[in-house]
Amino acid sequence: MPQPVTHAQAATSQHRSNRESLRALVEHGDFAAAQEWLGAHQVWEIVDAIDRMGPVDAVAAFRLLDSDRAFAVFEDLEPSGQQAILEVMRGAEFSAFVDSLDPDDRARMLGELPAKVARRVLEGLSPAERAMTATLLGYPEHSAGRFMTPQVVVLREGLSVAAALARVRDRGADAETVYTLPVVDSQRRLTGVVELSELLLSDDAATVSDLVVTQPPRVRATEPAEAAARLMADSNVRDLPVVDAEDRLLGLLTFDDADEVIEDAETEDAARQGGARRWEGHYMAVSVLQLARTRAVWLVLLLAVSLLTVTVAHAFEEALEQVAALALFIPLLIGTGGKVGTQASSACVRALAIGEVRPSDLARVTMREAATGLLLGAGLGLLAIGAGLWFTGLDVAVVVGVSLLLICLLGALVGGLSPLVARRLGIDPALVSAPVVTTVVDVLGLVIYFLVASMMLGL
Amino acid sequence: MPQPVTHAQAATSQHRSNRESLRALVEHGDFAAAQEWLGAHQVWEIVDAIDRMGPVDAVAAFRLLDSDRAFAVFEDLEPSGQQAILEVMRGAEFSAFVDSLDPDDRARMLGELPAKVARRVLEGLSPAERAMTATLLGYPEHSAGRFMTPQVVVLREGLSVAAALARVRDRGADAETVYTLPVVDSQRRLTGVVELSELLLSDDAATVSDLVVTQPPRVRATEPAEAAARLMADSNVRDLPVVDAEDRLLGLLTFDDADEVIEDAETEDAARQGGARRWEGHYMAVSVLQLARTRAVWLVLLLAVSLLTVTVAHAFEEALEQVAALALFIPLLIGTGGKVGTQASSACVRALAIGEVRPSDLARVTMREAATGLLLGAGLGLLAIGAGLWFTGLDVAVVVGVSLLLICLLGALVGGLSPLVARRLGIDPALVSAPVVTTVVDVLGLVIYFLVASMMLGL
Repeated sequence: MPQPVTHAQAATSQHRSNRESLRALVEHGDFAAAQEWLGAHQVWEIVDAIDRMGPVDAVAAFRLLDSDRAFAVFEDLEPSGQQAILEVMRGAEFSAFVDSLDPDDRARMLGELPAKVARRVLEGLSPAERAMTATLLGYPEHSAGRFMTPQVVVLREGLSVAAALARVRDRGADAETVYTLPVVDSQRRLTGVVELSELLLSDDAATVSDLVVTQPPRVRATEPAEAAARLMADSNVRDLPVVDAEDRLLGLLTFDDADEVIEDAETEDAARQGGARRWEGHYMAVSVLQLARTRAVWLVLLLAVSLLTVTVAHAFEEALEQVAALALFIPLLIGTGGKVGTQASSACVRALAIGEVRPSDLARVTMREAATGLLLGAGLGLLAIGAGLWFTGLDVAVVVGVSLLLICLLGALVGGLSPLVARRLGIDPALVSAPVVTTVVDVLGLVIYFLVASMMLGL
Repeated sequence: MPQPVTHAQAATSQHRSNRESLRALVEHGDFAAAQEWLGAHQVWEIVDAIDRMGPVDAVAAFRLLDSDRAFAVFEDLEPSGQQAILEVMRGAEFSAFVDSLDPDDRARMLGELPAKVARRVLEGLSPAERAMTATLLGYPEHSAGRFMTPQVVVLREGLSVAAALARVRDRGADAETVYTLPVVDSQRRLTGVVELSELLLSDDAATVSDLVVTQPPRVRATEPAEAAARLMADSNVRDLPVVDAEDRLLGLLTFDDADEVIEDAETEDAARQGGARRWEGHYMAVSVLQLARTRAVWLVLLLAVSLLTVTVAHAFEEALEQVAALALFIPLLIGTGGKVGTQASSACVRALAIGEVRPSDLARVTMREAATGLLLGAGLGLLAIGAGLWFTGLDVAVVVGVSLLLICLLGALVGGLSPLVARRLGIDPALVSAPVVTTVVDVLGLVIYFLVASMMLGL
């Protein structure tokens, strides 16, 4: 528990606590200054600071918080930090923390905890909370069901506005949001949604059925949370009803959980697009070994494929020995092809992610990317012929130019189509990363180069 | 204006309208089926369909909408579509559409319209709306001021809960949101924020000052909208107060505008990370020539830099002629270096974007990425020596392995540090794209390879 800070301590540490980071203060054992720092910052700033620390320091910093803010901070920490903190807690304190979490946050935390800790957490819950958590844990990982809040205020169509407002006042305290009020029929099937502002701003003679928006966007609990969050962004919806297969209301996906889902999905996309696996947790808190592991898989895989470039070059070794100038342009040619491919793939991965392109657009995207690749290749090919003349004769320069045209076409096609094909095959398009595209273009581009050279130079 | 659809037409087109896209129906002039399609879809689905069309088809499809939904659709269209529609409108209809937009949406649309059309739009507005729009247009592009809504319900600390609720009922109809209620002092300086749900759920004896959250997160109107939207996501805030330099309240940035800002910023980051400029509008609606133009600038620039690889290879041409086997491994070596660099840069760009890494972390990030690069390089180098023995002798294989170790270190450092250095220089880190990193690593990697070869093989 936090110790009282004397005025003298406060005065000397004041200056330092504003300039130094919480991490540095905790690392140096300057707990008085750290406590000062905590007092002077908002909850979300504290969360960010603790997320950056290793588990030991994170627990130490967390212990310095006064108990009011500790709940709020705990709720927003990364699961790895929550886990470290839970491990050092005992008894009543432990239960209080686990109980303080929203059911959906708790279910997600439990999903990432080791089984032993998770069991202890579940045992510490009240029966009602345990039942709610178990239900949420029953939905697949990354599904909308895992992220929804089951605690919502539900209305019936027949209610008057006054009765509906009374119901909100009556039941609203337990709900995570009262701004979006789902309307259901007698079988609890979702028939519409009413905004709290509509209720409040209409006159009392109105009924819920006058204000209800029917056929609202909704999502099945088993559908991916990312699809639900994208639907919310597209349809400008604050909270999205989550239903079961019979369209019965199960809960709401709220805006803040949707933000978290999108940020997570984008971070995963960014990692995959860069050719790495997503790591769990904060970039600064993850160990170097973990970082290396997320990157090693793809590198080793792609190294194996890259050996094909050695094989291709080996097959044309005689040509390389006859015209040594050919070797000079290898990095330029395959490098440019990889860049054209990277541009096309990142455009298509993004367009797929935000729904601007669908798998059914395959034919149109092929045409567009092929045309773009040819345009770029024609321009770059001419430039390359001009530049090539500085280093070699016209014959090799023309070979370079023609190869570049074809390699740009290849790059645009590989980069533009692979994400769409991946999506059709049920693979995340973001896995078609810059490294994957460049590796494919490296191998095929070399083949093109040597074939063009063999034909045009008669090797 | 829409024409009535007969039952016979409806019956025959029913089947087609469900399967075919709106674009195909409009292209084929099948307006009855298109109208059917519009009737069967939600506003946001219609917006998405129209965004995918060229301007002529977009206007034709828009004309088929009944006037109730036309406003809602118009509001959410891409600016290019809004512009095409405004250009064919005249007189009263024109003014009605422009007036129907929220002031912030209108200001952003105006910012992207050609000056002639923008002037016509401003002239068509009522004096009050024109003043509000002009104020928002006074803030820099991409600033929070451009995206905020100035129409908010403001409270004073002294108010009772009942009086505050009465004020919300009274003034709420014009406001874009009533869920977040800023509290200001007599100089209109922001002192706190009250949630509507808190007002509604508290007992009537309470006052606003009992419920107010003081020192809420806020943003200056001139600050970038992206920073404001990230702050909202970090602090789980639904609507963010926007203030001037004296902390006086100017408006609120609402959750849906923040979503739009983030999606836009991420799309721009994705384009830049792929080595292209961001294009305006929908991927499917943009012309091939525009697509090629967004990509050509970087390609030509990087082609010029890539010529350095030719120069480097040229300088070591004698070595290449003495040991032709060296040429075989060029694509493998620089390819792998580029991949390690791409992984590191995309991790750091993302961590910077979401605030996990700050420019002040430069030293720690250097250490982490150097260690990661060495680890990966050591592993890959050993694999490469083993693989190299299939194609060449031990001496060249060891040269390849040692070069790969150094090139991986190089790649991780270039990829990891450039985004941070860019941010310190005030350049968008996302411009440190995969193509830029691979180009730098290509040139320096070749130098490393030939130097290692010269020293170890005594060339």
